[in-house]
Amino acid sequence: MPQHQRPTKEEIIKAEQRIEGFVHETIILTSAKLNELAGAQLFFKAEHLQKGGSFKVRGATNAVQALSKDQIKNGVATHSSGNHAQALAIAAKTRNIPAYVVMPNNAPVVKVEAVKNYGAHIIFCVPTLAARETTLNEVVREKEAVFIPPYNHMDIIAGQATMMKQFTEQVPDMAAAFIPIGGGGLISGSLLAVHYFNSDVKIYGAEPKNADDAYQSWKANKLIPANNPDTIADGLKTSLGDLTFPIIAEGVEQIITVTETEIIEAMKLIFIYLKQVVEPSAAVPLAALLKEKANFRGMKVGLILCGGNVDLKKLPF
Amino acid sequence: MPQHQRPTKEEIIKAEQRIEGFVHETIILTSAKLNELAGAQLFFKAEHLQKGGSFKVRGATNAVQALSKDQIKNGVATHSSGNHAQALAIAAKTRNIPAYVVMPNNAPVVKVEAVKNYGAHIIFCVPTLAARETTLNEVVREKEAVFIPPYNHMDIIAGQATMMKQFTEQVPDMAAAFIPIGGGGLISGSLLAVHYFNSDVKIYGAEPKNADDAYQSWKANKLIPANNPDTIADGLKTSLGDLTFPIIAEGVEQIITVTETEIIEAMKLIFIYLKQVVEPSAAVPLAALLKEKANFRGMKVGLILCGGNVDLKKLPF
Repeated sequence: MPQHQRPTKEEIIKAEQRIEGFVHETIILTSAKLNELAGAQLFFKAEHLQKGGSFKVRGATNAVQALSKDQIKNGVATHSSGNHAQALAIAAKTRNIPAYVVMPNNAPVVKVEAVKNYGAHIIFCVPTLAARETTLNEVVREKEAVFIPPYNHMDIIAGQATMMKQFTEQVPDMAAAFIPIGGGGLISGSLLAVHYFNSDVKIYGAEPKNADDAYQSWKANKLIPANNPDTIADGLKTSLGDLTFPIIAEGVEQIITVTETEIIEAMKLIFIYLKQVVEPSAAVPLAALLKEKANFRGMKVGLILCGGNVDLKKLPF
Repeated sequence: MPQHQRPTKEEIIKAEQRIEGFVHETIILTSAKLNELAGAQLFFKAEHLQKGGSFKVRGATNAVQALSKDQIKNGVATHSSGNHAQALAIAAKTRNIPAYVVMPNNAPVVKVEAVKNYGAHIIFCVPTLAARETTLNEVVREKEAVFIPPYNHMDIIAGQATMMKQFTEQVPDMAAAFIPIGGGGLISGSLLAVHYFNSDVKIYGAEPKNADDAYQSWKANKLIPANNPDTIADGLKTSLGDLTFPIIAEGVEQIITVTETEIIEAMKLIFIYLKQVVEPSAAVPLAALLKEKANFRGMKVGLILCGGNVDLKKLPF
């Protein structure tokens, strides 16, 4: 796919066809108690039950499947200590090619083990952005592997768009959807999916106050990267990219930021009432909805449980 | 239903019709990673996502729905500090009648609050078996309420039987199913369901070693009550009843006991790989299967996630 401004409708349909069979069509969960608390009808898309424990496998699989046999014969590479690393390892297996993942040498052992378990080769580097990029470049050059970035890439955005396309098919008449914002791959894909396939759904971004680069960028109408953010929602620390930002700026209804306490409280509600194990990032949409619930009374609202890769030893309750 | 030896096939079909619409048809969950660990194809029935957070609402609803309007007009009563209390509160709502629940005055606040939230009237007593029974008798007499026991009751057994009937319909060719044993309502119902509807499924009981009255009773072929058992699987402390024991003794393939460490390890696997929040009792079947996995290689095995009511502050990891 050419790296033009944004994926077309056809490219999202094509992505859905490419990844079919390689990813789960995840279920929708509901809770009478959470509906009562919110005063709305909530539908949670269980992407934490997706392969690799997050939606990331959609984009990674689309990107890997989009490449020709010749392009991809030496494998794929990325730098990530998060869900994209596992997703790329899974995607690489669908083509029987190696995945090389550059990780900082202070990455938590559980994350390293998870990525190893999915069959990726891990290359450690010192924990700086510069070292990460240098090491990745070396790996790409030495192995002749193709770099698959975590979000700022058209095939990744098209792959993530399939989540929202399916979600609106599963929940007709959805009035609004709350999407967490990290690098912006999921929300930009969701905005495109709604734009092409169901323009009635309003998309709200949900972001930790402690990592509010999307909120700041949206307000200022220019890309403002995060400055070493610190939040329990570790999947949402990344800054928007130059491909994801314009799509968000153009289409998002509002970006709602939430405190650490609000994230933990929402996470607790998901554990207790949905009985789902999710990572803190997946609680950010519910936290945002509860904060603004006066504006959604009685509506059908979609929320994404974006991932479930949490260290049980570090649960905040 | 007369309190004869055991529910008939027709009574289980009738129970299923009675509770339809009042309970969820719960989903089946799977995990490639757990299949790999077990060397078998595992199917988990998500009764922790049932109304009230456990399968108990099946039996309670059947018992409450089976009574005539006149019989039940003054409400229902039980003694329980566990899932049956919530289940009865929910069942009583289906008939618009009060539910009275006798609870020990040292019951955890979270449990008391949960039962209150479902609309039951709570009557506290001192925490002895004698006080519990005396208080219940008083409530039954004063309120003219009908006592609905937690497991040793034919309508309860018939109601719980619907779980296994549906499970075998959802997973054809299941070779074996692992059922946790507390008072024996779920496993005796499951044995009857398999006997009447699908005689090919072998039923294995799973019990904590620290509360192994069913194992001891099965070995000795006579009812041996537990003596003040102590296990993290608090839903399985109760002893078998005179209605549940004979059904189990006759039909169960084997009863497998597991240590506290094995229960916690299995619970951790369910949190990490199924990403489900379950109570310790719900991990006992997986613990038992993993212990005996050499005998189930390659088979389709059903496991019941019986409940999800766990105090997040007391997770054992």
